[in-house]
Amino acid sequence: MLSERGEAAGAAIARELLEVLGGLAHEQRGAFYAYLAEAFEPDQEALKAAANSYLTAPSADTAAVLAERAEPPRQELMRRINMAQGGTAALVRMRKELPEHMAGHPELKRVDADLKHLFASWFNRGFLEMRQIDWQTPAAILEKLIAYEAVHEIQGWDDLRRRLAADRRCFAFFHPALPGDPLIFVEVALVKGLAESVRALLERDTDEAAQLRRANEADTAIFYSISNCQDGLRGISFGNFLIKQVVEELRIGLPWIQQFSTLSPIPGFRRWLGVRLKANDLSGFTLSEAEGSALFSATGMPYEAERPLACVRAAISNESWVNMSAFAQALRPALVRLCAMYLTESGTGGWRPDSVAKFHLGNGARLERINWMGNPGKRGIDESYGLMVNYLYDPATIEANHEAFTKEGVVACSAAVTALLTPAAAVLAVPKLALTTRRGKKG
Amino acid sequence: MLSERGEAAGAAIARELLEVLGGLAHEQRGAFYAYLAEAFEPDQEALKAAANSYLTAPSADTAAVLAERAEPPRQELMRRINMAQGGTAALVRMRKELPEHMAGHPELKRVDADLKHLFASWFNRGFLEMRQIDWQTPAAILEKLIAYEAVHEIQGWDDLRRRLAADRRCFAFFHPALPGDPLIFVEVALVKGLAESVRALLERDTDEAAQLRRANEADTAIFYSISNCQDGLRGISFGNFLIKQVVEELRIGLPWIQQFSTLSPIPGFRRWLGVRLKANDLSGFTLSEAEGSALFSATGMPYEAERPLACVRAAISNESWVNMSAFAQALRPALVRLCAMYLTESGTGGWRPDSVAKFHLGNGARLERINWMGNPGKRGIDESYGLMVNYLYDPATIEANHEAFTKEGVVACSAAVTALLTPAAAVLAVPKLALTTRRGKKG
Amino acid sequence: MLSERGEAAGAAIARELLEVLGGLAHEQRGAFYAYLAEAFEPDQEALKAAANSYLTAPSADTAAVLAERAEPPRQELMRRINMAQGGTAALVRMRKELPEHMAGHPELKRVDADLKHLFASWFNRGFLEMRQIDWQTPAAILEKLIAYEAVHEIQGWDDLRRRLAADRRCFAFFHPALPGDPLIFVEVALVKGLAESVRALLERDTDEAAQLRRANEADTAIFYSISNCQDGLRGISFGNFLIKQVVEELRIGLPWIQQFSTLSPIPGFRRWLGVRLKANDLSGFTLSEAEGSALFSATGMPYEAERPLACVRAAISNESWVNMSAFAQALRPALVRLCAMYLTESGTGGWRPDSVAKFHLGNGARLERINWMGNPGKRGIDESYGLMVNYLYDPATIEANHEAFTKEGVVACSAAVTALLTPAAAVLAVPKLALTTRRGKKG
Amino acid sequence: MLSERGEAAGAAIARELLEVLGGLAHEQRGAFYAYLAEAFEPDQEALKAAANSYLTAPSADTAAVLAERAEPPRQELMRRINMAQGGTAALVRMRKELPEHMAGHPELKRVDADLKHLFASWFNRGFLEMRQIDWQTPAAILEKLIAYEAVHEIQGWDDLRRRLAADRRCFAFFHPALPGDPLIFVEVALVKGLAESVRALLERDTDEAAQLRRANEADTAIFYSISNCQDGLRGISFGNFLIKQVVEELRIGLPWIQQFSTLSPIPGFRRWLGVRLKANDLSGFTLSEAEGSALFSATGMPYEAERPLACVRAAISNESWVNMSAFAQALRPALVRLCAMYLTESGTGGWRPDSVAKFHLGNGARLERINWMGNPGKRGIDESYGLMVNYLYDPATIEANHEAFTKEGVVACSAAVTALLTPAAAVLAVPKLALTTRRGKKG
Repeated sequence: MLSERGEAAGAAIARELLEVLGGLAHEQRGAFYAYLAEAFEPDQEALKAAANSYLTAPSADTAAVLAERAEPPRQELMRRINMAQGGTAALVRMRKELPEHMAGHPELKRVDADLKHLFASWFNRGFLEMRQIDWQTPAAILEKLIAYEAVHEIQGWDDLRRRLAADRRCFAFFHPALPGDPLIFVEVALVKGLAESVRALLERDTDEAAQLRRANEADTAIFYSISNCQDGLRGISFGNFLIKQVVEELRIGLPWIQQFSTLSPIPGFRRWLGVRLKANDLSGFTLSEAEGSALFSATGMPYEAERPLACVRAAISNESWVNMSAFAQALRPALVRLCAMYLTESGTGGWRPDSVAKFHLGNGARLERINWMGNPGKRGIDESYGLMVNYLYDPATIEANHEAFTKEGVVACSAAVTALLTPAAAVLAVPKLALTTRRGKKG
Repeated sequence: MLSERGEAAGAAIARELLEVLGGLAHEQRGAFYAYLAEAFEPDQEALKAAANSYLTAPSADTAAVLAERAEPPRQELMRRINMAQGGTAALVRMRKELPEHMAGHPELKRVDADLKHLFASWFNRGFLEMRQIDWQTPAAILEKLIAYEAVHEIQGWDDLRRRLAADRRCFAFFHPALPGDPLIFVEVALVKGLAESVRALLERDTDEAAQLRRANEADTAIFYSISNCQDGLRGISFGNFLIKQVVEELRIGLPWIQQFSTLSPIPGFRRWLGVRLKANDLSGFTLSEAEGSALFSATGMPYEAERPLACVRAAISNESWVNMSAFAQALRPALVRLCAMYLTESGTGGWRPDSVAKFHLGNGARLERINWMGNPGKRGIDESYGLMVNYLYDPATIEANHEAFTKEGVVACSAAVTALLTPAAAVLAVPKLALTTRRGKKG
Repeated sequence: MLSERGEAAGAAIARELLEVLGGLAHEQRGAFYAYLAEAFEPDQEALKAAANSYLTAPSADTAAVLAERAEPPRQELMRRINMAQGGTAALVRMRKELPEHMAGHPELKRVDADLKHLFASWFNRGFLEMRQIDWQTPAAILEKLIAYEAVHEIQGWDDLRRRLAADRRCFAFFHPALPGDPLIFVEVALVKGLAESVRALLERDTDEAAQLRRANEADTAIFYSISNCQDGLRGISFGNFLIKQVVEELRIGLPWIQQFSTLSPIPGFRRWLGVRLKANDLSGFTLSEAEGSALFSATGMPYEAERPLACVRAAISNESWVNMSAFAQALRPALVRLCAMYLTESGTGGWRPDSVAKFHLGNGARLERINWMGNPGKRGIDESYGLMVNYLYDPATIEANHEAFTKEGVVACSAAVTALLTPAAAVLAVPKLALTTRRGKKG
Repeated sequence: MLSERGEAAGAAIARELLEVLGGLAHEQRGAFYAYLAEAFEPDQEALKAAANSYLTAPSADTAAVLAERAEPPRQELMRRINMAQGGTAALVRMRKELPEHMAGHPELKRVDADLKHLFASWFNRGFLEMRQIDWQTPAAILEKLIAYEAVHEIQGWDDLRRRLAADRRCFAFFHPALPGDPLIFVEVALVKGLAESVRALLERDTDEAAQLRRANEADTAIFYSISNCQDGLRGISFGNFLIKQVVEELRIGLPWIQQFSTLSPIPGFRRWLGVRLKANDLSGFTLSEAEGSALFSATGMPYEAERPLACVRAAISNESWVNMSAFAQALRPALVRLCAMYLTESGTGGWRPDSVAKFHLGNGARLERINWMGNPGKRGIDESYGLMVNYLYDPATIEANHEAFTKEGVVACSAAVTALLTPAAAVLAVPKLALTTRRGKKG
């Protein structure tokens, strides 16, 4: 397919190859991938010669020859496959399946890397089309939304309809070679003020007049769910572009919307807190006297002002606090403050930053507000004791935030979050705290 | 733009860069291209290290590192530019302009090569959309057809309309990132039998009822013009795919069409014949006695049966033969046979094959018929003494023809053309002739 | 609104009127309709004068004046309302609501008649657009199908999806002024041979490969459900046009489909049979000896060859026969034959013909086959003891069938149905039977 | 076709009828129209009976019967024709042709009236779709604009392109049954201030950057041409709706546009002036002393202050004044004032008001400004001595203007036009002038 034939013949063969592939069983597909990994390496002699030439006389031209010969012929094969009808979809499926075959076959990583390299080029922003998804969208696409939603599951068509109602918006990226299949989509709620609870956003509601009224009275767009759809495109990032284009679109189409924010989960908070509490490693954490005695009176546990972490650890170990209102209220200030610490200092000391925080902060958003019991469902409790967070996209500061975060590790915070990190009573005692808004490696 | 920033920031900067570029004068753009050529080479030390690693331990992994480091960062820059609104168009324009700046700047070839590499990936067949062009097409696109037609100039809107009438078809490839701009288009005439003269096809005709009738009575689709539209995409081939998809489309949509053929120019014939006549280098060429004496009686020139080429050379040197009917008829058998020799043996002896012949034969078409005075206009006479040729696309033999031509240099010929190459009277005398249907280097 | 103002002013006022109307409660709307009925009658003096003129000198011109003055100004008002945004929909809603207010208000019939007169003009076939409905159709339209299906209820989105699968087709008429709202739609199943049971057609099935295979192997298109969507358009007939256009569409798009038939309910059969049995009024009905004795052995009821109706009446009065297999099988020949009599002679003697039969026979279809237990569901049993019927649309005979039915009351029957009406043993005894294929008034 | 058959059969016959009709020669079509006029009158006996019933007992019900029987069956026939593919277009063509056959056939007026009655219902505003026409519009539609433009001829594709440039807008109404054929279109220029000369608007200009800049700097939309496209729809008014919807569209899409005005011809001015000058019938017309002596010094004609009309008549009779600058300037004040009188008092004394003025004033526009030499071309001079007029559409006053004009004959005038009608020096002498802004029959 790669040798004597012209491009069109290659396309014909690619078509046949795709047909054959489509009919293969799981194991046979794995064998094919292994063959791809083994049989399409660069010509060793030619590449050695090019390497020697470059070493002898390093120049742009010898480097160009090197680049050409070092590219595995596998990539050309993939380009040929891509020419056939359905080729792009078949390649995306390949990369989706690769992990299933990788155990014991590290060479498949090369196939994965080549596909990723090509996808990064083919699925670049310039070729994507953003489309609004609403109740006028073909059912064949809507059905995919139900299948792909990864954050807050869509419970069938009635739930979907509510998410596409007049006070909701949904946008997706599509690629021309996968016309009926979204790459990523985001769900937006139009509300008054920053939303603090995801339950309120997801509640069923069929009052169309009320929905329309709310859309017209809204001042805030809440991005409450963003889902990547294609496993085969993992590592190719679309989310940042999508959010920014949606903000642009809404600013033009709904000029009365004043702010754009997420209502996001904090997937790593509980795990992080567990490790830190165990290690007693949270220098700078304090409780005010009032907070301390509230905790004491709600739990009956001995309160030690000098060891605030111990108090929290003791209190939290009683798993039933979540369902005991007074208990929970007493824990609230401590947990919210600890969460602010997590979100701003995560990355320090080898700790991997929270993935969602990293995504939005890296995009230039600001850590705006931490919401107590934003998601009291099982997943919310398991991940973050029910806390959720608003990341605010303020077009005026996005660029500066992004730069400060990327270059310096500085997390942009609202005054309220900053205040959490510097409790009035504790300011003098914990001067280091200001630095915790600086990420990991620099802190 | 490439270093610390994320992709989205890169896109923002790319947008600004494009705006600035758009306002630059010719010379400044040249300077920018030179900067692109110089400043974005691979890191020499890193690449040397990779080259050494590969030489020490050649493996798929060390080759992969080599491939990664040998890719000039210029390509990443171009990918970023491509993300911005209008980025693709700007890059295509860049490559279109590069030749204007290349004199004295060979380093620009590197920029050209990088763009071509990316375009081959971005503009691959899988991403192109074929659209039929007709009188329902937006004027903004039709106007581009008028501008881009490269074979038979379109003389304004009335001429265009005739080319989109009921007994004509036109198809073009579009790319999603250049939505209003065709990449290539082909014009097709629906006729009865193989068309032999381009004049008949281009004649004005406003009788819509007759056009419709002809469309319904046609048995042959003649591809009489195929034009690439984007100079910046030179070297990226679309024509082969377009012809084959149009054949598919017409077979389904117009099932009464029996054959698909071109009516093509022969741009290199006259020049080739001049050189060969001068060098007296056309072994195997003969004239029958009747042809020879007809030539003699029409021209009055001494006829030498042993030196047929000398006769032809002498006759042809009188430039006015074109306008002298009897003279022309006497030359006709000789010229048609010589043309058949040209089209089948071209490529031999270092002679570059006719570009149009190479394209269609390489696609798998068959050399079907040589047409005397197919184009008696100035360009036709200048290029090929007015001869034109039909290349026939027969779906049943395309694949075999393509293979034979690509691997063996064998030119597929109709019986009629084969007969031209083996004049009954001369068969025994010139046994080599059968071999002339084999292309150059192998013959 | 009708007097001094121009058309555009009228439109502005119509817009306001529509807004006001939209906000009115049920009773107030009724009052408005009564006002429409009373206040917009022709000018009595002017009309009397025109009537006198016509009587004095009857001519085309005096008739024209009469026509103009006899048209109630209400129609002009309705035309004005129709000019406003949403006017058509508002008028359709008006006519939908009129029956709710008619009790005690016979004058509302005039409003109804005027609306119907205008709708017949506005919704004429020339202005309707047929669209195929499939899984690519916007959800907003699909949701209406679920709501409007009147024959075999659609049980939610999964059921809908099965009805739009690869071996199904669905087509609807739309009017440009009601773009998102179908007027009528028909559901079609692609099957092998005439379908005899609606259960098989409605069964859930999610095997897409099997659906596709069945579509390709089908030779018959079964119209198994046709639903009018707009109550406000009652009396304006679309079904005939829709069926015929769908047949055309399928013949072109699926040339391997050989026959087009319905699988239809028989809503009036059981009621008709009850009345006739009671009145002992079914001259010509016979049972063969074998049928009679089978009935006897299954039921144990005394069989009287001379009084076949009495046997049937006795047998059928035991309501549990439906669930007793042997009993049912014994009744089958009698019921099928009686059904054939019903469908062919209905209309006789003041009996209104079966509405579904009248529709399809009037369209030119042929009574092809009567299916035992075609619909054993409650509705099927209640209406027709579970029987269903295939009406066959044969393009070659549609026109002749239509004419014979309309002019002469002749019902076109297949040989099988004809045989039912002329049992071999009974032919001589009941010579009148041939005439029963002639409808009512002529029979 | 009307009698025994159902609707669908009627449609089939209508289709055949249309095919036959399409092939008929001019005379045969005339004969068919005469047949339509004669053979489809109401049933005389039935109508007489209904007339008698009504006279005996006039009621809504007897009127309804009368209305039904008085409608000529011809209308039903036309409705059936309209159901066939292409039926609407065929009927529109019929009415277009009728005038060609009317000489000696007054009965064809009945056919014309029936078609008009139906068209008024079918082509009502609610069913029309407004589309913007630009360079993205299919050539097949653009070509019709070139053919249909009735005010300022479009000189081919280059001229058309200028009229669709960035500082121009064009909108048309379409009907779903004539999808590729506009009913009416309006051309709009975006300019700074009220345009006073049509030449400036029509000038060729290919500077796209300048066009875009002008569009962005414009504060005024000038409706400089509005053309009805379908002769067969004469008397069905679309212009008023189109202008108002375009104003709405532009207000939303181009919020920086402040005013909406026409630049219109005055087709009847010159003829009116000729008649009045001859009859010496222009009471109230005066010239100031300065104007009178300027006229004298430019023409050398004896000036008589008491007989200003005589001066004007004498001056204007020298046809070459148009080309003599000083002469023209001297006549200017008189002609402009006379034109203001024409536009405001036309309609008086049995004089039919200027058709263009009547249209715009009836729509609610204001007579804003009279432009000297607005159109110095031949047609402009012949119709109105080169004068043109701006009618201003001010959304705030449209409704009141319309009402005052329609009910009272009052012409809304700008201060400038009012001033023309009340020259300072003459106010006391001609108190009647204020009344001349009241139209004809009431003045």
